[in-house]
Amino acid sequence: MTKKFQVVGIGNAMVDVLAQTSDAFLADNGVEKGIMQLIDMARGVELYGKVGPATEMSGGSAANTIAGMAHLGGRTAYVGKVKDDQLGAIFAHDLRAQGAVYETPLASKDAKAETGRCIVLVTPDGERSMNTYLGVTEHLSPDDIDTNQVADAEWIFLEGYRFDGPESHEAFAKAITACKGTGGRVSITLSDPFCISRHREAFATMLRDDVDLLFANRSEIEAMYKDENSFDAALETAAAQVDIVACTEGEHGCHILTQGNRWHIPAIPTNVVDATGAGDLFAGAFLWGMAEGFDMETCGRMGNIAASEIISHLGARAQTDLKKLFLKHKITL
Amino acid sequence: MTKKFQVVGIGNAMVDVLAQTSDAFLADNGVEKGIMQLIDMARGVELYGKVGPATEMSGGSAANTIAGMAHLGGRTAYVGKVKDDQLGAIFAHDLRAQGAVYETPLASKDAKAETGRCIVLVTPDGERSMNTYLGVTEHLSPDDIDTNQVADAEWIFLEGYRFDGPESHEAFAKAITACKGTGGRVSITLSDPFCISRHREAFATMLRDDVDLLFANRSEIEAMYKDENSFDAALETAAAQVDIVACTEGEHGCHILTQGNRWHIPAIPTNVVDATGAGDLFAGAFLWGMAEGFDMETCGRMGNIAASEIISHLGARAQTDLKKLFLKHKITL
Repeated sequence: MTKKFQVVGIGNAMVDVLAQTSDAFLADNGVEKGIMQLIDMARGVELYGKVGPATEMSGGSAANTIAGMAHLGGRTAYVGKVKDDQLGAIFAHDLRAQGAVYETPLASKDAKAETGRCIVLVTPDGERSMNTYLGVTEHLSPDDIDTNQVADAEWIFLEGYRFDGPESHEAFAKAITACKGTGGRVSITLSDPFCISRHREAFATMLRDDVDLLFANRSEIEAMYKDENSFDAALETAAAQVDIVACTEGEHGCHILTQGNRWHIPAIPTNVVDATGAGDLFAGAFLWGMAEGFDMETCGRMGNIAASEIISHLGARAQTDLKKLFLKHKITL
Repeated sequence: MTKKFQVVGIGNAMVDVLAQTSDAFLADNGVEKGIMQLIDMARGVELYGKVGPATEMSGGSAANTIAGMAHLGGRTAYVGKVKDDQLGAIFAHDLRAQGAVYETPLASKDAKAETGRCIVLVTPDGERSMNTYLGVTEHLSPDDIDTNQVADAEWIFLEGYRFDGPESHEAFAKAITACKGTGGRVSITLSDPFCISRHREAFATMLRDDVDLLFANRSEIEAMYKDENSFDAALETAAAQVDIVACTEGEHGCHILTQGNRWHIPAIPTNVVDATGAGDLFAGAFLWGMAEGFDMETCGRMGNIAASEIISHLGARAQTDLKKLFLKHKITL
């Protein structure tokens, strides 16, 4: 029996405010390079007042993944909270316009917080340093989970960043129960090494009990399995815990481990303009490939190709037809 | 005596919502190609609901010109109305971050209308078709003109589009009087052929009585001087009326006419991605060149170079160092 959705993603709904900047600017303003740091509105106003002209585009890690799935024609939905304000309207529009279902109740106009946004500072090396004001997206709660929707999904995809909200742990638990209850499976992205250090226990429990597919990059795998003495050992330990491990390693491509098999798939050489969304789109293409029944190695190749498209321009949503790129790389669709 | 500002621009303050689309989409949705059409909020919601994922960037014709001036290091200010809302904050940030002074009082949060925005539909040929919801920017009034500011400007730059508001005519008159009172000069852009047909008399009167420098493209010059039987005759008639005519002609470059002299300056061959802002940045670079004392031909070349930068990417604000481009084209700064 075919489920309505191939993947339902749950995460922080954000609009990205992307600005090119220098390494000196990061240092002068106390921005830690290459990671996601949470900021409050006051810090956001201060930092925004200092950055140059910017470009606004919808973002949010899991939302980027779901937008990538939808771009590929996947049957997909997203859960994440925005407010009934202008940035919220932009976020909702862009996801629906891409073909994803998005029905999470809006936070009301009266809410004190606003739609979340992320000041993404892009340095000349293409690295992105994220400064996230969560706003209303912090308050994603079990009430926002439509159990019928997640029960009708082959996979749910959970964003590690959303572990930053206690109510969202409960929302995740509710979604996992509903999805697994109908034979669905659970995927998760670890999101960020600092996010892991904030929520190590919760991640560990979920990896042990619930997760079928783990997305992470090298530094996240190493942070999560920090007692292992090598990247390789960390990968193997992860693979012993979950059914599938899909681990990206930047310019070195990705590693896929499942059921005793292991592939290392080289990256597509690319001029990096902006790394924002690379991991998100890797996951989007990988999930789409799996949902469409491609073999693991092909899924990994699709992930690499999608990531290479995203890092070639500013912003975390695809600007080129990804299916055409797959064909160009001799993947038979 | 040096004035504080080289140029103060007055126009419609807008945030652009840029989306790639097909010619069929324009036809199916009644969007007239290549021009600016005014829409109300209901039409905006309808159209936005149909376009694909978009990118938001600050726009507004005169604001793009002033941002270009500021990018080049010019002393410049802008007058145009936004609301105290999220899009208004984006508009104000981007202009100030570029180095322009922007102090127009905000429309209050209680205003029914919102900050203006323009749904810019970009077709594969790079042409842009603009759908403008004016919002609060329609209500620019004489009260918004700081006479001390415009009196302290060498030039004011008036956006033809703002002739769409009766109170703004009075605002323009107030600005002209204050600027001319201290020896300042008046430049204007005709903006759009349909804008000319809406306000032919007002444009004609201002060209006769007040304007020193006229910016237009070929179709605007032809529309304004429609009784002439050739483009050339229209140019000459315009040049008899105002001190300087700077007329762009797309891939054919620009024509500069002043005091009996005339130059045709070829365009820089460019792959057109998005024509949005080409004329605006031409004007920004031309005005900067004049303010810095460059000869007319060099000002025209600077305008062409700036226009070629803008059309090579999505959005109407410079993404490359324009001074470096001038140097690359062997202009001595």
